[in-house]
Amino acid sequence: MTEHKKLVIGVFGFGVVGEGLYRVLQQTASLNATIKKVCIKNPGKKRNAPAELFTTEKSELLNDAEINVIVEVIDDANAAFDIVSTAIKNGMATVSASKKMIAEHLPELLSLQQQFDVPFLYEASACASIPVIRNLEEYYDNDLLQSISGIVNGSTNFILTKIFEEGITFSKALLAAQQLGFAESNPDLDVLGIDAVNKLAILLVHSYGIVSLPGDLLYSGIKNIELSDAKVAAEKGCQVKLVAKAVKLKNGKVTAFLLPHFVKPSSQLYTVRNEYNGVVIESSFSDEQFFYGKGAGSLPTASAVLSDISALSYGYRYEYKKLRYHTPSELTNDLYLKVYISFDALKNIPKEEFEWIEEFYNGQERSYLIGVIHFNKLVKDNWWKQEGISLIALPDSIIENIDIRKLKKRSLELAGIVG
Amino acid sequence: MTEHKKLVIGVFGFGVVGEGLYRVLQQTASLNATIKKVCIKNPGKKRNAPAELFTTEKSELLNDAEINVIVEVIDDANAAFDIVSTAIKNGMATVSASKKMIAEHLPELLSLQQQFDVPFLYEASACASIPVIRNLEEYYDNDLLQSISGIVNGSTNFILTKIFEEGITFSKALLAAQQLGFAESNPDLDVLGIDAVNKLAILLVHSYGIVSLPGDLLYSGIKNIELSDAKVAAEKGCQVKLVAKAVKLKNGKVTAFLLPHFVKPSSQLYTVRNEYNGVVIESSFSDEQFFYGKGAGSLPTASAVLSDISALSYGYRYEYKKLRYHTPSELTNDLYLKVYISFDALKNIPKEEFEWIEEFYNGQERSYLIGVIHFNKLVKDNWWKQEGISLIALPDSIIENIDIRKLKKRSLELAGIVG
Repeated sequence: MTEHKKLVIGVFGFGVVGEGLYRVLQQTASLNATIKKVCIKNPGKKRNAPAELFTTEKSELLNDAEINVIVEVIDDANAAFDIVSTAIKNGMATVSASKKMIAEHLPELLSLQQQFDVPFLYEASACASIPVIRNLEEYYDNDLLQSISGIVNGSTNFILTKIFEEGITFSKALLAAQQLGFAESNPDLDVLGIDAVNKLAILLVHSYGIVSLPGDLLYSGIKNIELSDAKVAAEKGCQVKLVAKAVKLKNGKVTAFLLPHFVKPSSQLYTVRNEYNGVVIESSFSDEQFFYGKGAGSLPTASAVLSDISALSYGYRYEYKKLRYHTPSELTNDLYLKVYISFDALKNIPKEEFEWIEEFYNGQERSYLIGVIHFNKLVKDNWWKQEGISLIALPDSIIENIDIRKLKKRSLELAGIVG
Repeated sequence: MTEHKKLVIGVFGFGVVGEGLYRVLQQTASLNATIKKVCIKNPGKKRNAPAELFTTEKSELLNDAEINVIVEVIDDANAAFDIVSTAIKNGMATVSASKKMIAEHLPELLSLQQQFDVPFLYEASACASIPVIRNLEEYYDNDLLQSISGIVNGSTNFILTKIFEEGITFSKALLAAQQLGFAESNPDLDVLGIDAVNKLAILLVHSYGIVSLPGDLLYSGIKNIELSDAKVAAEKGCQVKLVAKAVKLKNGKVTAFLLPHFVKPSSQLYTVRNEYNGVVIESSFSDEQFFYGKGAGSLPTASAVLSDISALSYGYRYEYKKLRYHTPSELTNDLYLKVYISFDALKNIPKEEFEWIEEFYNGQERSYLIGVIHFNKLVKDNWWKQEGISLIALPDSIIENIDIRKLKKRSLELAGIVG
């Protein structure tokens, strides 16, 4: 039996998460862990902890031989990478909650861990309180994983819930989210989908052993979602949710994307309201499992960090099993997506890019079409991300390889918009 | 990095789970594991696997020096204990799905594991495809766990869903469950709550380090639930669900019980329909997490067994952290429960046992009351389990220590049934 190792912790950052962790650790007597020093930027700020705990000198933590765990919970991604990589190089077990930093530096962080043989844990970086990384790594550690679909950003889910349930516009919903503290004053990281695609990149390595920079993945946020889109969703018995997806295709390759989706009531994601997160994991033989909880906030994040710290006390580390022990899956863009697109002006929609259009609605204020388009055309162009256009994936959006070319011309004619 | 160990497996049982495992293993190339031998009872039965795989001699598996993992998936709890304890004594890593056997032999199995220093895993024994044991053991490994509440038996949940949604009686719903294969021909293990309380006993050791035999816990099933109870639930905006619960009280002690509950829509358990299982885990700082999936069936069970096998390949074992590294929590019966009780005849209800009665409805066919009773009175008596009486816990059923004695007499007078 492994014994609990005594942990002496150096923390970078004493914002809501850092302070949350400080409080949480005071109430977990069973964990043999103490915070020795906290490195902060602004020494003048009043803090609810003894003054001698704090320093502004990184080296006081990173070069302290007694400190064996570095916890990094700061806001600045560049500084975070600097701290984390130095800590790993110094042989210190490291815990981080910085999804942006981790997603953008995955390749370097993977090789640093191998080179210096140091554990680096970051459960808080994806869905905070939901133990999704650990479960993908340990429980779904086999080649039976069929797909993972998640609502991984609380702010955007809060906004979409408000639009849908209260019938208000995006900007009013965003304001409500900001007032309640569910969205930042600069909400771009959330509403453009950047935060969520960072999490998708992190989940991909633990789901399928795929290392991909977030910028290389197909993604969009919810900034262009109109109230009229929510109405169409409701007519179709669906809700609009921003869903991160990774799906193993019949050919064994994996497709991954983050897009707003029409979600049916039969999906567990339909039940995820407000600032909550939810992840559906589908495995060949066990049907679907669903994990649900708070995806952000100081204490949920702090408690995920705490679980990492606790895991370090008995020598846990990610083994990246799918990357290192299995043949990692390959990412593919060779598929079609069935999407709903609403728009102000038909002239801004490159209709000829579609393989097949199966619905076309010409409204006074807003029109829409539902059609099938090659994945790569969305990856390479960005007309669909422009103002006045919103793209939402259909519930069964993935079309692998039916011979749809034959249907193309006829469906366009049927739709009455060409020919 | 731990290397994957080559696993040579001996399987006991080739029923639906055993055969499921055989199929699943054929599709998980990345796992370096093969089944060398399967021990069966009836050699005459036709099976979809090569004849040389089978034997009826236990010793051919238990004394084979090449076999390093024993998987036990048979139906007979006594034989299962015999196999599992022999395997552990022989130093073989062991996996089992027999909840009844595990729950009833927890103390012996804990000491055998320690004495022979052998891993024994049994994720399939609680909620099959939902990785609840592993998460309680690894992720919720601290003293912050506030409560765990679960729908842990698929048959009874299927029956309750039918009663509630289709307005049919218990016996019709049971028949439907049997026809669809969601209930055994002898359904007592399920409908009397025995299967579910076995799971509660298993979850208790991983949640709180509490070792308790299932028979010592307060429990009941759903056999006495009437259609009229479902109607009262609906009037109150609730559903009836059979919920296993373990809750840490303010005094640090834990109460555990399995009872039918009125469940409100605000609870994630409300969404768990038909044969599905769901578990809500509440931790001090991260609010609630919810885990949902199939709790039974050959392939979900086989895939949970597979996850255990896979975990063995890199040396995983339960450490029973809360039992061995922490001070285990203490189980208490010193609390009150607020319950709904419906009955044919008031004379069968010991009204004077209640501290407080806050609703009393006298109906033509069926009457009910809602009142507060000491937990120990339910543990020690069994009038409430008799035919013609059904007891359902209220959503916030636990009352720790308000001074309710003062209220007692007055409330009984108010209820107009005494004085």
